[in-house]
Amino acid sequence: MGEKKFTKRGVDYPIVDGTRTLPGKYYHSREIYQEEVEKIFYKFWIYACRAEEIENVGDYKLIQVEDESIILTRDKEGKIRALFNVCSHRGTQLCTEPSGNFNSGSIQCPYHAWTYNLAGDLIAAPLMKEGDRFNKKACSLPQASVYNWEGFVFINLDENPVPFEEHMEALMGKFSDWKMAELRIAHHIRYDLNCNWKLILQNYQECYHCPGVHPLLSEWTPVQSAQHDAEKGAVIGGFMDLTKERGSMTMDGEAAAPPVCDVSGDDLQRIYYYSIFPNLLLTPHPDFVLFHHITPEGPGKIINDCYWLFRPEVIADPKAKERIKSAVDFWDLTNRQDWQVCEQMQIGTKSKRFTRGYYSGREDILHQLDNEVLKALGHNLAD
Amino acid sequence: MGEKKFTKRGVDYPIVDGTRTLPGKYYHSREIYQEEVEKIFYKFWIYACRAEEIENVGDYKLIQVEDESIILTRDKEGKIRALFNVCSHRGTQLCTEPSGNFNSGSIQCPYHAWTYNLAGDLIAAPLMKEGDRFNKKACSLPQASVYNWEGFVFINLDENPVPFEEHMEALMGKFSDWKMAELRIAHHIRYDLNCNWKLILQNYQECYHCPGVHPLLSEWTPVQSAQHDAEKGAVIGGFMDLTKERGSMTMDGEAAAPPVCDVSGDDLQRIYYYSIFPNLLLTPHPDFVLFHHITPEGPGKIINDCYWLFRPEVIADPKAKERIKSAVDFWDLTNRQDWQVCEQMQIGTKSKRFTRGYYSGREDILHQLDNEVLKALGHNLAD
Amino acid sequence: MGEKKFTKRGVDYPIVDGTRTLPGKYYHSREIYQEEVEKIFYKFWIYACRAEEIENVGDYKLIQVEDESIILTRDKEGKIRALFNVCSHRGTQLCTEPSGNFNSGSIQCPYHAWTYNLAGDLIAAPLMKEGDRFNKKACSLPQASVYNWEGFVFINLDENPVPFEEHMEALMGKFSDWKMAELRIAHHIRYDLNCNWKLILQNYQECYHCPGVHPLLSEWTPVQSAQHDAEKGAVIGGFMDLTKERGSMTMDGEAAAPPVCDVSGDDLQRIYYYSIFPNLLLTPHPDFVLFHHITPEGPGKIINDCYWLFRPEVIADPKAKERIKSAVDFWDLTNRQDWQVCEQMQIGTKSKRFTRGYYSGREDILHQLDNEVLKALGHNLAD
Repeated sequence: MGEKKFTKRGVDYPIVDGTRTLPGKYYHSREIYQEEVEKIFYKFWIYACRAEEIENVGDYKLIQVEDESIILTRDKEGKIRALFNVCSHRGTQLCTEPSGNFNSGSIQCPYHAWTYNLAGDLIAAPLMKEGDRFNKKACSLPQASVYNWEGFVFINLDENPVPFEEHMEALMGKFSDWKMAELRIAHHIRYDLNCNWKLILQNYQECYHCPGVHPLLSEWTPVQSAQHDAEKGAVIGGFMDLTKERGSMTMDGEAAAPPVCDVSGDDLQRIYYYSIFPNLLLTPHPDFVLFHHITPEGPGKIINDCYWLFRPEVIADPKAKERIKSAVDFWDLTNRQDWQVCEQMQIGTKSKRFTRGYYSGREDILHQLDNEVLKALGHNLAD
Repeated sequence: MGEKKFTKRGVDYPIVDGTRTLPGKYYHSREIYQEEVEKIFYKFWIYACRAEEIENVGDYKLIQVEDESIILTRDKEGKIRALFNVCSHRGTQLCTEPSGNFNSGSIQCPYHAWTYNLAGDLIAAPLMKEGDRFNKKACSLPQASVYNWEGFVFINLDENPVPFEEHMEALMGKFSDWKMAELRIAHHIRYDLNCNWKLILQNYQECYHCPGVHPLLSEWTPVQSAQHDAEKGAVIGGFMDLTKERGSMTMDGEAAAPPVCDVSGDDLQRIYYYSIFPNLLLTPHPDFVLFHHITPEGPGKIINDCYWLFRPEVIADPKAKERIKSAVDFWDLTNRQDWQVCEQMQIGTKSKRFTRGYYSGREDILHQLDNEVLKALGHNLAD
Repeated sequence: MGEKKFTKRGVDYPIVDGTRTLPGKYYHSREIYQEEVEKIFYKFWIYACRAEEIENVGDYKLIQVEDESIILTRDKEGKIRALFNVCSHRGTQLCTEPSGNFNSGSIQCPYHAWTYNLAGDLIAAPLMKEGDRFNKKACSLPQASVYNWEGFVFINLDENPVPFEEHMEALMGKFSDWKMAELRIAHHIRYDLNCNWKLILQNYQECYHCPGVHPLLSEWTPVQSAQHDAEKGAVIGGFMDLTKERGSMTMDGEAAAPPVCDVSGDDLQRIYYYSIFPNLLLTPHPDFVLFHHITPEGPGKIINDCYWLFRPEVIADPKAKERIKSAVDFWDLTNRQDWQVCEQMQIGTKSKRFTRGYYSGREDILHQLDNEVLKALGHNLAD
């Protein structure tokens, strides 16, 4: 067998060189992509937005999940609702602006003025009388399930979703020291990328590429320090160690802000990298939280929204501006280094001569990620 | 039952609230669209152009019907011909300019100089000798059938078309007071729209949306005045009443011109809205005629050519210019209001959660329109 | 029978008027195109580049053949290699610049730094240990076969290609007087065309269209002078006679340079037109060589790279610049005349009313070209 172990800080790691990657068609086939939409994006809990983006009653943000447009809004009880953006009358999209506020406390279709309250109930259908064939109750807006985890609003479009706490078990209680619900968006960059959504997850989950692709990142957090502490199911991840005392991922390697809330001990020297399958990449730092929200738009196209979260008092402090910028610049640089290789991998895997590649021992968690996809699709690959 | 009646000017209308719309796939499926092309646009009589656009011998206009390009021209006997724009030699498109005149009295292929007369007969094929495998007669240009109704030139691409008079029975004699053959194009606007062709017909055929979408139109012609007087087959429609004496659909609600030809009596106070299935929307006013020519370019894309017809002497009168503009501005405004909601309906109906919507009693004729489509396709929906 | 003979300079030509062209779907169907890619472009010898474009060790040029990117490079023994541009590790495209030089003498993947020598052997895979599941040998880059004919580098992507000399028999020894390996590229124009690749070959192989489309060409080489001297298999072609003594295909019809190398006798008065199926059109003149490299990009789209080859000493001579330009201008003009009719044929053949066209006696070799395609695809058309 090609297996060995390496010991680092008391942890044994198997090094299995040569497990195989997914076949190339998993990045290019329109049919497989469609299967992923049906069996993953329309079935799994997916990240939608930060609660702060719909802070007040009537605030809304639109989320696109393939053909589905979802209105995330807050009803008059303050409950977050995920309403399908489709009038029950004749199917008109109710709302087109990417975000805003329903000042009237209701949502009116621009076509025939059918009107819904913020909880999705049909409250007016001009000139229509209820009867055998029509009643308002049956015309409420369909809704997706909602779960607010630490200020991250997840939705599930399936009519009978697995409970969030069960599916995301490894997330429950994790990172509570950061009090992420209290953090706020300090910066946002949208990237349009020409690659499959899974390549971004794979790229995020291994640092075998870091020495060549990310010289600066490799200086602040050496590749040898990478460890996993969550290896199963929808939540996988691990951490890397900062070499600098009071360091962080910024252009000069110094912290961008004081430690977040209750972060202490080892966590002051670690950067966590967590994939919350399928569309959220969460990167808690000692002093801020970075995350990527991935929206596929076909087998070879995604939108990647990258956000920097800081404590509100840091954002409010004019002197902190330069330090936040240093964190933004560091990750923007690092992101762009990643996008380039991901896009090249997208192109290369199209070749018929690429059957299945080989994972090194440093990439073994990618095999787990692939298996998560295959399990969801009900596919079985000979290995 | 949810049915009631309302009586208006002696006519009883059933109000059936809650008949169901078409399923969303009828606006999005590439397969259904392809079926529509084959069974509707390649089989039915479709509007092509106004006779005035090819007034003289050799004048031509190209009409695109999905993959088919048709040369509408007038041969030396003055007969309108609808020639397939494809050389019999090796299939080269003969003519590329959207309109013009064959001055030479013939149509020459730019590739190998095969030449046809304006009746479509092959009259020259350089260096080729007739024999067993080749004779000129077999190489005439294929032709579509042609019918000139009141200056509206219809074509039928089917090799054995139903007679126009039979298919368009409800049109025969209708609107003869307008003497539409004598009218001329005063203005033309082309709109590129991102929606299914049927959504435009549906939008045109109901005024349930008018109060919210068209405040000005609703002032000149209140929604309550809408009535149908043709409810079956390829020709359906009705009218609305003008509130103003000597009014019309203009920015100030006043007539744009004197009544057209023999228009008199009730017709002086009515705006007619006729769908001539599948691609012509005809709107006779007392003082002018508006029409829309719809050209689908896929399930979610159409070209909508909108024309304003006036009496030639009105067009020639410099003092009438401002009044014509007022009619153009009114309808351009109204059109754009409609396009927006049609495009939003196109997007919304893509949702899987939109199964089938509900028609109000004011939209019952749309059910008839849907049935016309389903009948042509040979589809049967459980209702 | 519709066959006759005409005799020209002692050669008998059958005139078969009315053999039929390919059906229109051969220019439009995505399925047929995909079959052509698999059975022709991935199986046949195809032209890739001129040897001079990768003259030195480590020089490379990328060639795209549908989904396959091939690195044409010269290894340290000076041997031309055609390496698939795909890292064996995880499928990343190794190289993105269209041409350049691997100065290091090796090719390194930008993602995880796997490194190959110029012969395609994997020479480094950081942190990976060979074992049961991974060995470097199995991870060499896949290669296509290579044949250098007179400086024209052909590749074959099939794993078991027919020998070049066998497949291109009619080319062996042909045109040796031109010593084409010694010629160099004096000019290059890239044309993006909206037509099927076969239309370009068909256009190239008949001069029935010349009188109408190419008045200048027809003056220098009258259409009646066209003869074939290779009519079978992958290499077909013939020649036309120059009317001018010491003439050539230039704007003024005079030679652009002295005769190339050993060209003599009749060849001083001839322009040869050779289709080297499927993607090279070779046009030896007495004084230079023109060729077209055709790259299909779907059923209705190609890139056509046109090159002018001259003797190096002509290119080096400042006084020859104007004459070379005259040859370039002549063919650029002629090319554009051809592209227009080819693009119109692409559009016209989409019509359902175009079933199959007719070839004249002057186009009989196109029937042979069509048969070559049909044979490769294993299709059988009733004729």
